[in-house]
Amino acid sequence: MRQTTLFTKTQKEAPADEVAKNAQLLIRAGYIYKNMAGAYSFLPLGLRVIENINRIIREEMDAIGGQEVHMPSLQDPELWKKTDRWSDAHVDVWFKSQLQAGGEVGFGWTHEEVVTELMRRFVSSYKDLPLFVYQIQNKFRNEVRAKSGIMRTREFWMKDLYSFCATQEAHDAFHEACADAYMKIFDRLGFGAQTYKTFASGGAFSKVSHEFQTLAEAGEDIVYVSEEKGVAVNEEVLAEADLTELGVTKDELEKRKSIEVGNIFSLGTKFSEALGLHFKDEHGENQPVIMGSYGIGPARAMGTIVDLLSDEKGIVWPASVAPYQVHLVGLNGNDAEIRDYTDGIYSALRKRGVSVLYDDRDARPGEKFADSDLLGMPYRVVVSKRTKEEGMFEVVERSMGETMALTEEALYAKFSNQDT
Amino acid sequence: MRQTTLFTKTQKEAPADEVAKNAQLLIRAGYIYKNMAGAYSFLPLGLRVIENINRIIREEMDAIGGQEVHMPSLQDPELWKKTDRWSDAHVDVWFKSQLQAGGEVGFGWTHEEVVTELMRRFVSSYKDLPLFVYQIQNKFRNEVRAKSGIMRTREFWMKDLYSFCATQEAHDAFHEACADAYMKIFDRLGFGAQTYKTFASGGAFSKVSHEFQTLAEAGEDIVYVSEEKGVAVNEEVLAEADLTELGVTKDELEKRKSIEVGNIFSLGTKFSEALGLHFKDEHGENQPVIMGSYGIGPARAMGTIVDLLSDEKGIVWPASVAPYQVHLVGLNGNDAEIRDYTDGIYSALRKRGVSVLYDDRDARPGEKFADSDLLGMPYRVVVSKRTKEEGMFEVVERSMGETMALTEEALYAKFSNQDT
Repeated sequence: MRQTTLFTKTQKEAPADEVAKNAQLLIRAGYIYKNMAGAYSFLPLGLRVIENINRIIREEMDAIGGQEVHMPSLQDPELWKKTDRWSDAHVDVWFKSQLQAGGEVGFGWTHEEVVTELMRRFVSSYKDLPLFVYQIQNKFRNEVRAKSGIMRTREFWMKDLYSFCATQEAHDAFHEACADAYMKIFDRLGFGAQTYKTFASGGAFSKVSHEFQTLAEAGEDIVYVSEEKGVAVNEEVLAEADLTELGVTKDELEKRKSIEVGNIFSLGTKFSEALGLHFKDEHGENQPVIMGSYGIGPARAMGTIVDLLSDEKGIVWPASVAPYQVHLVGLNGNDAEIRDYTDGIYSALRKRGVSVLYDDRDARPGEKFADSDLLGMPYRVVVSKRTKEEGMFEVVERSMGETMALTEEALYAKFSNQDT
Repeated sequence: MRQTTLFTKTQKEAPADEVAKNAQLLIRAGYIYKNMAGAYSFLPLGLRVIENINRIIREEMDAIGGQEVHMPSLQDPELWKKTDRWSDAHVDVWFKSQLQAGGEVGFGWTHEEVVTELMRRFVSSYKDLPLFVYQIQNKFRNEVRAKSGIMRTREFWMKDLYSFCATQEAHDAFHEACADAYMKIFDRLGFGAQTYKTFASGGAFSKVSHEFQTLAEAGEDIVYVSEEKGVAVNEEVLAEADLTELGVTKDELEKRKSIEVGNIFSLGTKFSEALGLHFKDEHGENQPVIMGSYGIGPARAMGTIVDLLSDEKGIVWPASVAPYQVHLVGLNGNDAEIRDYTDGIYSALRKRGVSVLYDDRDARPGEKFADSDLLGMPYRVVVSKRTKEEGMFEVVERSMGETMALTEEALYAKFSNQDT
């Protein structure tokens, strides 16, 4: 992509009303735009990051047997009354509206009710189970206060997976498989090392509920962590006397701020009983389906990456999610010969399948380097008059700042082999 | 994909309340599920069709310089008051809700206001123009009556592109390029031959507004067509005296039912003036940006394909959008040796990159063939005891019913070369 074609531009200052580091940097770099409190646009570079994150999530969900679907936002109140989750007294994040045709509708903030009702059409026997469906779909939540930039908004993509099992054993096995898949996702997104599967409330050490918490100063949550033992618990669990099952004592746990990057709920038969999702077991007996739900917010993951990995110069994308692998920065562009030469390098890289953002703007080197640092592609390749004369390219790795000098051939070899 | 793994199933009868052919077939085949009037779920096979349609749309929009973004559904009333499109007296499809934090919000039914406001951040000079942005995003419309299955729903994906130009000439050139791209899309989706760029109201033959209408008995719209001359007009245009510019007379035009599969609006400076989107021209003068908007509904396109191309046995997908290219139907599956043999053919096809739906169910041949016809993949490959003995595969092409007998090698050669 040529930067002269890209409609977004960087800006020096973040908007005054934006206090979260993730949104400040993403707005300054032109990845996102704040439309109103709690609602952002994702611009071309930002959408590429989201799509990379979604691709990683899909691959890992497909690998554990997930089947992708897409359910509507519009919600029929009758369904939610059956589980007692329609009333504003019980659920405080509904957006509701009036249908012109008469009656109320809601805008989905989660989809347990919808997917349970849908499965009544497809599940009748134990032979239909287990099954796992997921979607990456827009959720609406009427938060009193949107905060933390793109971390807690009123409208956001959610990957929500729902599991349907005939037995507790099958449920537990999938629960475990999904927790492993989540850690693979967080590893691939670049913040696995700082992420803990925490033990959350509800019978403490039962496998009822888990959160995935990423240690970060920008976090809204609090966890108690032993980095040494790789154990984290939330406040309710800490309050309980017996931590021995986890092999830690209270003294070993340190209080830390964190971001909830994923969660897993064992739902038992709460929804299947309320909505009538049953199956016939081997003996012909009717049984309610055992369910679970499993969430990850792609934009929250994006914000987490920015909060954790950026430095004083700007964003630092892991290669797995970066909008482009290489930022090709052309200098001396007012010299037609150098510009043609740089255009040639751009074409040659693209021909080899390398994903390249090409700064072909007519701007000063200092401005180009500052923008390049802010935008945060994994590698910067500088092409100038000197490059052409000496045949050597300056390649700077964004995260550690390491610099290499590569011949043209070595340059192509390096990036053609990149796993982009 | 193995059908024993796929959670959806076919059903013999369509729901009684669903009168549209597209929804009847798609529900029976398990592509979609009706959650409530005007809101459908897209199930794994249906979502694959939508994604194929979206891919084709993206390729053609990118080819004419479109840059993809994603704007929020939540709408700030202040923005829409500036163009006088907030009041229910002026716009009758709003879903509106109350923010807990105070004030109203709307749910976007189009995005002219949002994208115009956004562009104020990025457009200041004629050098920033022209630029074209698009999204494939969920729209909400509070229709009094949802109808025609997935053709007119209360919630639907829309590809909406917006153009921003400095001059009328630049605008007209893009308008033309986008109209050409639309016809390419409809060709690739399989209904280009039945689709006309119609001349719609508003100054008749000015280039103000065009619709793309696909002739179909299931259509809600009416157009007047000369198939011979390739000209179509809508009712308002017909009423005008002078059709000579189009080279047709009233007598040559036949009244036909049609589906509006796309539209193009020249917006002039209506939105840029109301919302303050200006640029400095070559002389340093402030000018309002000239805009256009360009819509296609991917689910409506999917419904159009089903309405137009299906037959009495079921759906007929063009290869370009089919969820899988090959439906591999295994017979004699209770013979372990034949089942292993068929599994081997499945693996061999997949290894060659062929996208295959594999009917590995324990069911009668008649049921399998009926389901295969209903599901509508472009090719059916039957594997049975006889296949194994004779080394010849029966391949049936879905649309014309042509049957071929191919050796194993010829089978692989045929589908490995498919442009899937």
